[in-house]
Amino acid sequence: MDIYEQAIELHKNLKGKISTSLRGEVTKDTLKLFYSPGVGAASLYAKDNKSKLKEVSWTNNLIAVISDGSAVLGLGDIGPEGAMPVMEGKSMLFKHFADIDSVPIVLNVHTADEIVATVKAIAPSFGGINLEDISAPKCFEIEQRLKEALDIPVMHDDQHGTAIVVLAGLINACKVTDKELSNCKIVLVGAGAAGVAVAKLIYQYAKPNIVVVDSKGIVEPSRKDLNEEKVLLMSYSHEQPAGKIEDALKDADIFIGLSKGGLLNQDMVKLMNNSPVIFALANPEPEILPDEAKKAGASVVATGRSDYPNQVNNALGFPGIFRGALDNGVSKITDEHKIAAAEALASLVSEPSADKIIPSPFDPGVVSAVANVIR
Amino acid sequence: MDIYEQAIELHKNLKGKISTSLRGEVTKDTLKLFYSPGVGAASLYAKDNKSKLKEVSWTNNLIAVISDGSAVLGLGDIGPEGAMPVMEGKSMLFKHFADIDSVPIVLNVHTADEIVATVKAIAPSFGGINLEDISAPKCFEIEQRLKEALDIPVMHDDQHGTAIVVLAGLINACKVTDKELSNCKIVLVGAGAAGVAVAKLIYQYAKPNIVVVDSKGIVEPSRKDLNEEKVLLMSYSHEQPAGKIEDALKDADIFIGLSKGGLLNQDMVKLMNNSPVIFALANPEPEILPDEAKKAGASVVATGRSDYPNQVNNALGFPGIFRGALDNGVSKITDEHKIAAAEALASLVSEPSADKIIPSPFDPGVVSAVANVIR
Repeated sequence: MDIYEQAIELHKNLKGKISTSLRGEVTKDTLKLFYSPGVGAASLYAKDNKSKLKEVSWTNNLIAVISDGSAVLGLGDIGPEGAMPVMEGKSMLFKHFADIDSVPIVLNVHTADEIVATVKAIAPSFGGINLEDISAPKCFEIEQRLKEALDIPVMHDDQHGTAIVVLAGLINACKVTDKELSNCKIVLVGAGAAGVAVAKLIYQYAKPNIVVVDSKGIVEPSRKDLNEEKVLLMSYSHEQPAGKIEDALKDADIFIGLSKGGLLNQDMVKLMNNSPVIFALANPEPEILPDEAKKAGASVVATGRSDYPNQVNNALGFPGIFRGALDNGVSKITDEHKIAAAEALASLVSEPSADKIIPSPFDPGVVSAVANVIR
Repeated sequence: MDIYEQAIELHKNLKGKISTSLRGEVTKDTLKLFYSPGVGAASLYAKDNKSKLKEVSWTNNLIAVISDGSAVLGLGDIGPEGAMPVMEGKSMLFKHFADIDSVPIVLNVHTADEIVATVKAIAPSFGGINLEDISAPKCFEIEQRLKEALDIPVMHDDQHGTAIVVLAGLINACKVTDKELSNCKIVLVGAGAAGVAVAKLIYQYAKPNIVVVDSKGIVEPSRKDLNEEKVLLMSYSHEQPAGKIEDALKDADIFIGLSKGGLLNQDMVKLMNNSPVIFALANPEPEILPDEAKKAGASVVATGRSDYPNQVNNALGFPGIFRGALDNGVSKITDEHKIAAAEALASLVSEPSADKIIPSPFDPGVVSAVANVIR
């Protein structure tokens, strides 16, 4: 059986990945307290008061993982039923890594207005909202509107979780290659949810020269097809010549791919500056395989895969981010939080090397290191 | 400490009543199957197909408990935060009694249109919908529209759960008092969600003479203030003289109170026919206390309380109803299901007596007896 057959069999055998469980025993005596009439006192205690509700309900430790299934993994728009196994998996990771209770909610509405209305309607049920696998550009508007409307933390993990872990990796990749991130030329291929957020956070952190490339070529002023987010990305670039990836790669220090498998070849890597850093993050097939990149001269290679060194894995970020937000009463995740989280992750690798620029989510201390800076 | 102080302390100590837990262990090896890339196969397997999704996700065993907090217990409109402890309690009961995973969802939208839109939007996340503590008359429209729109079971428990358990109790109360339900005159006080559903189900079952009384008096044709549901209730009554409860009670065999504490006194019970049956179901204070009712001649008394005999407890109904619906692939709960469930509950009491007309939810076999007829 290949990994995909194994995965289906495992899912069928377990009939899912999460369950609910009870915090106390239900008996004739406790039933009067857990339910009618006693529970009425807890209800009156919590009425109209979200923080009092957290004292007496599971909302103090509860995150909704919400998707409309419009941009799931590398699979695209596969709808709410298709999205559910991924969202349930995310809830599983929340529990395993950060002991956070989490419920996957998949939506069969798809416009920004409908998604915002639905999430606002159910928000009192949760202590935080993790948006997931919602397509760009609507994901930007949805997250922004929900952050403004709600008084609980809201984070689109495809954007910010990815950006945090990429930045953590870049900090250590620069140490390994003796580069100063602020002096680097970065070519970022892929201007979807993750690409936009990665560019924003890296620019916020070090103001390097970031040239963004999408499926139509370099994002530059002569383009007439750019949405609002892509126009913003142009301001991160020192020069914006029209052209293709190859044109952008000349003298680049760092390649970040959030695009599609096989897009980068050895000749293209050879166009780059000395000691190039390659983050080939397309999943499951990277833009270039680590062996090939190394052959073409790459000093550090990271991918999204667990079977190569330097896995850029969102599970390094979201568990600690939300653990910290819940524990420390943080209702808005800011750029300062994200940068602090990236630095905390980078500092967990005591001696960065070409094969070890970021920790593993299974390393002890990852969640607490991240949670500790979200305050 | 009184029961209310105890309840708050217990809720604070446990920080809620439910958690999530994992069906499998997360390791470096299983992570590839539970999450990216393996989970993609489960997603493609489930895409656009709710029954395949049930094979590979927790939706096969998952009920949402949904409320807007507009009619919570006897507390009234206390909003979503106030509602949450009750809904979480309901989820706890689903797990304890029927091993059903359940998630409480409280809404901060309140019109029928908004509630229907929200529940439809999140419905792919669940295997069934238990509506709870939504005020009348909007609860009727909301449930009806959701039943038509969704292909999973939808039940407003305040209506149908209550009706099932009341009918179960009446079946045995008639045995104890040697009454034929179809020949009885029933006075039902309270025409909210529960009252309307109880009247409908009893009439459907035995076509007795049911006189309904609301806060303005007997529901009868000269009234100009009746909503659609109350107009329907008039068709269950052989005669509809204008008047008060006292006028209705003359020659009544059965009193069913779903109204407010202390509404019935001994003189009123004495107006009734021989061997009167009193279901005084207001909570926490019944319409009349069992001792008083007995002194006035009542043969059988039931209440909503666990500290008197014959507790009419919804926990006898909803766990088995949804257990059966999930296990047997039933997507609509019909009147036939409800009657069969009531008969199944009644038959669990092998020798009905004045102090034992219904089982306890803690009795073994209750859930399976009900689940078995939902097919």
